[in-house]
Amino acid sequence: MTYIAEIKVMPLKELLDPQGKAVLHGLNNLGIKEVADVRIGKHIQLKIEATDAIQAQALAEDACKKLLANPVMEYYELEVHE
Amino acid sequence: MTYIAEIKVMPLKELLDPQGKAVLHGLNNLGIKEVADVRIGKHIQLKIEATDAIQAQALAEDACKKLLANPVMEYYELEVHE
Repeated sequence: MTYIAEIKVMPLKELLDPQGKAVLHGLNNLGIKEVADVRIGKHIQLKIEATDAIQAQALAEDACKKLLANPVMEYYELEVHE
Repeated sequence: MTYIAEIKVMPLKELLDPQGKAVLHGLNNLGIKEVADVRIGKHIQLKIEATDAIQAQALAEDACKKLLANPVMEYYELEVHE
């Protein structure tokens, strides 16, 4: 069966996010002053061929640890659906 | 009140995603051959000061249209929570 893993990879909360700060200033300059903070990360969708959701989840975790997220600077959250 | 908007900005399904293709090859080279496709976009978190969730949602939509997503190449999905 085919599963879709939705993975969110974000900069750790302790770290500065210069891209987010640039976008925050951009929004303020456009007149959207209610936005107090912006953080920007990656959203990754994997299409996985697996026998069940548990295997798909394990494969996605493996992919995150081996390639997709750098734990020194980033954390990730993942969700698997059909 | 403070709300958090979680925004997913992804390349349109009709378009090629060279970054996703590169990651797909990387995963296959690492031995994760069950992954059939990868698409990579941005995940943006906005911290918004608003009186209610409806106002926060409207501000986040406005930010997406004015700055965060390019509708020629990307679509976005957003969710607001406290």
